[in-house]
Amino acid sequence: MHAIVDQIQSVDLNAGEETRRYLDTLTKPPESLGALEELAIQLSAITGELKPRVTPPAVVVFAADHGVAAEGVSAFPQEVTAQMVANFASGGAAINVFARQIGAQVEIVDVGVAAPLTMQGVTSAKVRHGTANMVVEDAMQFEQALAAIDVGVAAVERAKSAGARCLIVGEMGIANTTASSAMLAVLTVEPVANVVGAGTGIAPQQQAHKVAVIERAISARQANPEAPLEVLAKLGGLEIAAMTGAYLAAAAHRLPAIVDGFIATVAALTACRLCPAVRGYLIFGHRSQEPGHDIALKALEAKPLLDMSMRLGEGSGAALAYPLLQAATAMMREMATFTGAGVSDKAKS
Amino acid sequence: MHAIVDQIQSVDLNAGEETRRYLDTLTKPPESLGALEELAIQLSAITGELKPRVTPPAVVVFAADHGVAAEGVSAFPQEVTAQMVANFASGGAAINVFARQIGAQVEIVDVGVAAPLTMQGVTSAKVRHGTANMVVEDAMQFEQALAAIDVGVAAVERAKSAGARCLIVGEMGIANTTASSAMLAVLTVEPVANVVGAGTGIAPQQQAHKVAVIERAISARQANPEAPLEVLAKLGGLEIAAMTGAYLAAAAHRLPAIVDGFIATVAALTACRLCPAVRGYLIFGHRSQEPGHDIALKALEAKPLLDMSMRLGEGSGAALAYPLLQAATAMMREMATFTGAGVSDKAKS
Repeated sequence: MHAIVDQIQSVDLNAGEETRRYLDTLTKPPESLGALEELAIQLSAITGELKPRVTPPAVVVFAADHGVAAEGVSAFPQEVTAQMVANFASGGAAINVFARQIGAQVEIVDVGVAAPLTMQGVTSAKVRHGTANMVVEDAMQFEQALAAIDVGVAAVERAKSAGARCLIVGEMGIANTTASSAMLAVLTVEPVANVVGAGTGIAPQQQAHKVAVIERAISARQANPEAPLEVLAKLGGLEIAAMTGAYLAAAAHRLPAIVDGFIATVAALTACRLCPAVRGYLIFGHRSQEPGHDIALKALEAKPLLDMSMRLGEGSGAALAYPLLQAATAMMREMATFTGAGVSDKAKS
Repeated sequence: MHAIVDQIQSVDLNAGEETRRYLDTLTKPPESLGALEELAIQLSAITGELKPRVTPPAVVVFAADHGVAAEGVSAFPQEVTAQMVANFASGGAAINVFARQIGAQVEIVDVGVAAPLTMQGVTSAKVRHGTANMVVEDAMQFEQALAAIDVGVAAVERAKSAGARCLIVGEMGIANTTASSAMLAVLTVEPVANVVGAGTGIAPQQQAHKVAVIERAISARQANPEAPLEVLAKLGGLEIAAMTGAYLAAAAHRLPAIVDGFIATVAALTACRLCPAVRGYLIFGHRSQEPGHDIALKALEAKPLLDMSMRLGEGSGAALAYPLLQAATAMMREMATFTGAGVSDKAKS
């Protein structure tokens, strides 16, 4: 991990400002394309180019299990993680559908599914067979968290080698909103009850149970909020660690990364705590229905592109936002200037 | 116009409910794709099909001038309307760029540009050379409003004949936020100051002048708020009338129409006042920065898909929203079911 962090540089704000000036020469009232212009400016800052490209995008989905599922915190049984990995591998999940829409390759990475998996179309990079139950013991060892981060780094480097110019990272792991909520509560010093939601769809009384489980885990683990790797190892998940690594690698390789929903944003926050310069490379795809997402977004001062009341994960919200990045780059490359098109840019007064 | 209104039927709510049930069999927690699921349900209700298609989309941009521009209500001089039509025709405007991104044909229709225009790539359907100055006289005659509506109907019927399965309607017309604001204030009985904004970018003191001009026009014209055609003829614009006709025709031909920003939404409101069944065929693409847009959206009980702080028009916000419709239909066609993928759909309790 330290090798990749050492490669990370801040985004190029001068390139961003050059894009801001160029945008005002295009045939539209100044700033009238709003958030799309801000997106173009950020993509220039990320890549250092006035007219960057984000095609093709790559989707990487990290899957892992969570020992805390034994506490009955999820609406679905743990077997669903492996079943959904099979669904990803055969192309039937939402993220597969949305990836096809945007022309993205999908890589599925088993970074810690509990069941043994040997499945075509799944990269085997299991660090351990699911985390331990964080109520009882640390979710994983410190070295395992580092190894899972490196799985994420390696996946991004494969995507980059294959030509990807934009990164979408997703996850699958029954009970991973529980792990993410625990991490977020510690990292932002927020009461657990504020960050916990329905996950994939538990009832209100189960939410109270989920809060109690997380509170017990936090109290038992005593992770230092100033030590993101410790929070990740004690309360996190293998797929959350891999996503953290993926965001670090995206920044190191100057690739724009579209952050998905709640779990992805907790991983992004972890990456930014490890290296604040990562923040400039992150584009936030959508606002999830999970209540903790707003807290995570606020901690990152992030405003997502979409607000679709979604709460699926897998990278689905990030994939849906991708066409807006494409549109922003096409605007820069293809729109006529006032001078070129012979359109008056003279406001009357 | 009356012929097309007679063809409009309500959307098929049963088809929508069938889609709602089918969505719960797909490999995702129930309702976890939020607004995308609602979109799929609406597209089924519009088309009567469980798995509809929205490809290819068509973009139609109606251009016209406004006599009220003489009152100095816009940041840009009137010549810009014709200059931008030339820019559309040569493919350099924002809507051209976004239309290419989504694979849409673009038709530019001159329904009332003040200057004579004979330009390749522009459909000539001029009803008159711009409206009259509504402060001094009615913007157009009643028969001219009907003729402009029919221009919109004909454009949609051409798009449908060419195979379009989704409609995006845009506009260009210097001073058309002034006409739209006047119409909206009358149709919703809202104070003019609440609906008026910066348009393409006037300063606050010019906004006060714009409010005063609109108040004078409304007071002088005395349009009956219960008579949408009268409001359109006395205070509207030729491109606004054509857009109204386009939404009527979309509904009559059961085509989903993505409504763009402020001006488009005022035209959509006019169409819905003429025939309430139109509402079910309208999908709202984005929330504009123009303050009147929220008022128009509220009058239609509409929640737009995107909120990008845009205020360009041309159909640009609708075009940016289109990939979400594509994703919604792909979700219905391509996602695996729990049974088909062998994924447990059993919640634990």
